[in-house]
Amino acid sequence: MTKKPYVISNVGMSLDGKLATVNNDSRISCEEDLIRVHKIRANVDGIMVGIGTVLKDDPRLTVHKIKSDKNPVRIVVDSKLRIPLNARVLNKEAKTIIATTEDSDEEKEKKIKILKDMGVEVVRCGKGKVDLKKLMGILYEKGIKSILLEGGGTLNWGMFKEGLVDEVSVYIAPKIFGGKDAPTYVDGEGFKTVDECVKLELKNFYKLGEGIVLEFKVKK
Amino acid sequence: MTKKPYVISNVGMSLDGKLATVNNDSRISCEEDLIRVHKIRANVDGIMVGIGTVLKDDPRLTVHKIKSDKNPVRIVVDSKLRIPLNARVLNKEAKTIIATTEDSDEEKEKKIKILKDMGVEVVRCGKGKVDLKKLMGILYEKGIKSILLEGGGTLNWGMFKEGLVDEVSVYIAPKIFGGKDAPTYVDGEGFKTVDECVKLELKNFYKLGEGIVLEFKVKK
Ligand SMILES: NC(=O)c1ccc[n+]([C@@H]2O[C@H](COP(=O)([O-])OP(=O)(O)OC[C@H]3O[C@@H](n4cnc5c(N)ncnc54)[C@H](OP(=O)(O)O)[C@@H]3O)[C@@H](O)[C@H]2O)c1
Ligand SMILES: NC(=O)c1ccc[n+]([C@@H]2O[C@H](COP(=O)([O-])OP(=O)(O)OC[C@H]3O[C@@H](n4cnc5c(N)ncnc54)[C@H](OP(=O)(O)O)[C@@H]3O)[C@@H](O)[C@H]2O)c1
Repeated sequence: MTKKPYVISNVGMSLDGKLATVNNDSRISCEEDLIRVHKIRANVDGIMVGIGTVLKDDPRLTVHKIKSDKNPVRIVVDSKLRIPLNARVLNKEAKTIIATTEDSDEEKEKKIKILKDMGVEVVRCGKGKVDLKKLMGILYEKGIKSILLEGGGTLNWGMFKEGLVDEVSVYIAPKIFGGKDAPTYVDGEGFKTVDECVKLELKNFYKLGEGIVLEFKVKK
Repeated sequence: MTKKPYVISNVGMSLDGKLATVNNDSRISCEEDLIRVHKIRANVDGIMVGIGTVLKDDPRLTVHKIKSDKNPVRIVVDSKLRIPLNARVLNKEAKTIIATTEDSDEEKEKKIKILKDMGVEVVRCGKGKVDLKKLMGILYEKGIKSILLEGGGTLNWGMFKEGLVDEVSVYIAPKIFGGKDAPTYVDGEGFKTVDECVKLELKNFYKLGEGIVLEFKVKK
């Protein structure tokens, strides 16, 4: 296998595994947890999210809760180039890479040109959906040796399914959101059996604010 | 408010909050965890599940992983009386109460008669769906002062939404199941905002087998 970045998956979730309520209220983390996440951000080369998260939450994905003189590269996985040109993740505070497919049409090529003119890098791999395995190889070649994967649940599924995640850290808020249709930590198709599922090894756990942090290594 | 039993909600779930895979593989708990659950069972007056769990898993809901001379009363919430007459929860090992609605038709009355002849108690409250608040009052009157709520996600939602749960204990297995459609700890409609959601207070946590147990009190 080609070399790939070391990937840490991090989320803040309710006890019942939700990333937000059914109405997309995602006030989960406490101040202490935001600081914890920004400390991880300050120590990786890249921060990755799916286009779903950009469209729903419009995050900046910079290090701003703690002092730090560098911002990691922001990576958005976006097959159909749905990213709005005024998305905060495209601001000047850090470098941004948009990963999209090789599929092409006039409109897409036009948008790629505009993005490039804005200083955004566009990387292409896969057809229909971004090929995450290939993407990891490309990012590694660009010097991105470590990535913080910050969701959402659909991209998390893609990354776990492909075996691309190395480490997991989860902040569990002492809250129950409920909801069959609320977004969960790992959505997508799901593993059919327990035998096929991703196995973890609990490495560390500690109380943080009113919640708890659990840290795992992914078993390979 | 009328008096109600003290309710402990317990589940074994994957780290991403799932009670089973999309194909209903629910091998989550380790032996140590089963013993933990059976110890709780041995200390309550009743064990409650929804009809969904009976239809999918056909559990016995008795204390058999540890020595105990009593079995709590088994309570199945089943509005339309879908319970199969050969369900294991209806065996002779313990007393069983089926909670159903006041709605009536010929077939339902016939089935109630058969169940009663089998020694099963049938309790009726609510229309359309079992009225869980009323049910709690009725069970309390019958001497059931404590209940272990063992799911699934739909009944858990009903109980949390009505504010009927007092304590929560969760075993988190070091596994990721994924799946937008996999059953989660609390399903149903879900709370729309974080302000409305159920708030918990972390009371205790410890490693168990390869996983971790988290214990909470529900804030009222
Ligand atoms: N609490 C937290 O820590 C946290 C963190 C992040 C997000 N969230 C929440 O998560 C929710 C958003 O999650 P989401 O699942 O809708 O979106 P998402 O995971 O951020 O993005 C998913 C999208 O990525 C694109 N994609 C491209 N290639 C893919 C591949 N190979 N595998 C998977 N996805 C691929 C797909 O769209 P295209 O096909 O169009 O490319 C897919 O729909 C929001 O509610 C947000 O608030 C919470
Ligand atoms: N890992 C664990 O600890 C664990 C424990 C239990 C279950 N499970 C899993 O959970 C899944 C089953 O969960 P489920 O959600 O399908 O079923 P469920 O929660 O066991 O039962 C739900 C059913 O209860 C009935 N009900 C009646 N009145 C209700 C009310 N007021 N509120 C809510 N429900 C009411 C409804 O059916 P009617 O309208 O027909 O009455 C409803 O569909 C299975 O996959 C099982 O393996 C896992």
